[in-house]
Amino acid sequence: MSEKIKGLLDLDTGIDDALALAYVLGSPEAELVGVVCSYGNVTVDTAARNTLLLLELLGRPDIPVYLGADRPLGARGPFEPPAGVVRIHGRDGLGDVLTENRSRNAPRAAARRDGWVETLCDTDVSYVPTGPLTNLAEALKMTPDLPKSLPRVTFMGGALCVPGNVTPCAEANIRNDPEAADAVLRSGLKTRMIGLDVTHQVILTREDTARWRALGTAAGRFFADMTDHYIDIYEKNNPHMGGCALHDPLAAAAAIDPSLVTCLPANLRVELDGPVRGRTVCDPERLRDAEKDCEVALIVDAPRFLGEFLARVERALA
Amino acid sequence: MSEKIKGLLDLDTGIDDALALAYVLGSPEAELVGVVCSYGNVTVDTAARNTLLLLELLGRPDIPVYLGADRPLGARGPFEPPAGVVRIHGRDGLGDVLTENRSRNAPRAAARRDGWVETLCDTDVSYVPTGPLTNLAEALKMTPDLPKSLPRVTFMGGALCVPGNVTPCAEANIRNDPEAADAVLRSGLKTRMIGLDVTHQVILTREDTARWRALGTAAGRFFADMTDHYIDIYEKNNPHMGGCALHDPLAAAAAIDPSLVTCLPANLRVELDGPVRGRTVCDPERLRDAEKDCEVALIVDAPRFLGEFLARVERALA
Repeated sequence: MSEKIKGLLDLDTGIDDALALAYVLGSPEAELVGVVCSYGNVTVDTAARNTLLLLELLGRPDIPVYLGADRPLGARGPFEPPAGVVRIHGRDGLGDVLTENRSRNAPRAAARRDGWVETLCDTDVSYVPTGPLTNLAEALKMTPDLPKSLPRVTFMGGALCVPGNVTPCAEANIRNDPEAADAVLRSGLKTRMIGLDVTHQVILTREDTARWRALGTAAGRFFADMTDHYIDIYEKNNPHMGGCALHDPLAAAAAIDPSLVTCLPANLRVELDGPVRGRTVCDPERLRDAEKDCEVALIVDAPRFLGEFLARVERALA
Repeated sequence: MSEKIKGLLDLDTGIDDALALAYVLGSPEAELVGVVCSYGNVTVDTAARNTLLLLELLGRPDIPVYLGADRPLGARGPFEPPAGVVRIHGRDGLGDVLTENRSRNAPRAAARRDGWVETLCDTDVSYVPTGPLTNLAEALKMTPDLPKSLPRVTFMGGALCVPGNVTPCAEANIRNDPEAADAVLRSGLKTRMIGLDVTHQVILTREDTARWRALGTAAGRFFADMTDHYIDIYEKNNPHMGGCALHDPLAAAAAIDPSLVTCLPANLRVELDGPVRGRTVCDPERLRDAEKDCEVALIVDAPRFLGEFLARVERALA
């Protein structure tokens, strides 16, 4: 039997982050060694609270949770999610479907302040950030040799060939900290970008969430209710999609099985100025370099991913 | 012996259009059946004058030249190239290297006003626009069934994964008439996009143009001088490139031999509003459609193209 892939997730734990967490816990090839938290869909404190709550619900309270950045590089005050994001993920970041009682019983903030960079530096670890790249940019500052030793990092973020979701050019994770993303993409680190190019091609419907509810477990009911809230918002904001996009789960899946996506090898930068701020784009100055740092996913085997997603999440919720 | 590819070029005849013309005339697999002219790098009248002059210089005054659009769809006045474009292509559109004498001897405007759409509707024709898509958009209006019958159109224009060359998002040909390009890309017509993604990867140097000068022909001297002007401008505007980009010749080459490029199948639209006006982008509403209308070139076999480019242009200039 081959060794399991050690996964280190970096979540700004909103709804699709929760789905990515369940995906990894339901994946037989993967062993989750920790979750770093970030601001983004919620504040970092809420992300940590949500992660601890979800790990308890999914029967894995043993997995360490780390507190990461509470704001973008160079920001003065801590980050507060804007109104549009609160609408998408709910005030609590998990669709506002928890009963008052369960909320009160949520695990106390037991997140660790330090130690995740040490876990990251374990060369076996597959690191998967699904929020802003602030934590990774800070780790690179602390550990300049990291690009040489770290295995390819699979991140959810960016939009290479499609419009953004917060501006015409920018995707939310990158737009939350363009300087961090630019530093990561120009560091020499090997990355795999799972952006809107592919995540807008993998769509979950109410028929799918109904299967979770039918499991008859607390986790199944909670995930179904939470995800139905997410689908509600997608029906209002993106009626042509016919469901909700599985952004973060696709990044987790591609980290475990890169053959799910077909990639363009490229050297990227992030636009920092003007109306295109936050756009991920091929760096003209490195366009003809033979070596490419990033694998940008442009095509996805959506039916295979969706089948595996449902099977794995169901396993985690059962 | 297999039949030749019948090529119909649509040029806004500046410097790289001239190189594309020489490329096609030097290609043994291709038979040039006509050149439609367009505004863009120059006015349409100058494009026609330049095309007639070049065809005479290259020994093919028999090839018909057609006058196309003199302005973008819906524009009030005829198009005048902006100062930046005049700097790149010269006041005469061919690098201002013609002697006064040769200019005076240029063929009179013998361009035809009508007939090119009939040539286009010949289902065997490979149509290659290297300027704005205004002529093609107007042909589609006149002949709504064209998308069903026309073979794949290979056009130079757009920038999918790289920044634009006239705005951070827009490439010049598309920016000159975004409405025309959007109409073409959403018409159902099969297209192949040769944009900055690949044309910025194929670079010509002064060592290459020196070979043309050494041929000892009038055409060789003229093409060398003209292209050196183009390289001068690239050295000022894009010093990291180390030469000039072969935009239009790559489109002509990919029409003759599509295996030179590797493409992403996609359904595109053109952004029409705000600071992203003129950006070519995957259409979110057709992102999951199984059928893709456009093959967007993202990778190019630059060494093979450059070798073939030099051999073919040399053949045309000898």
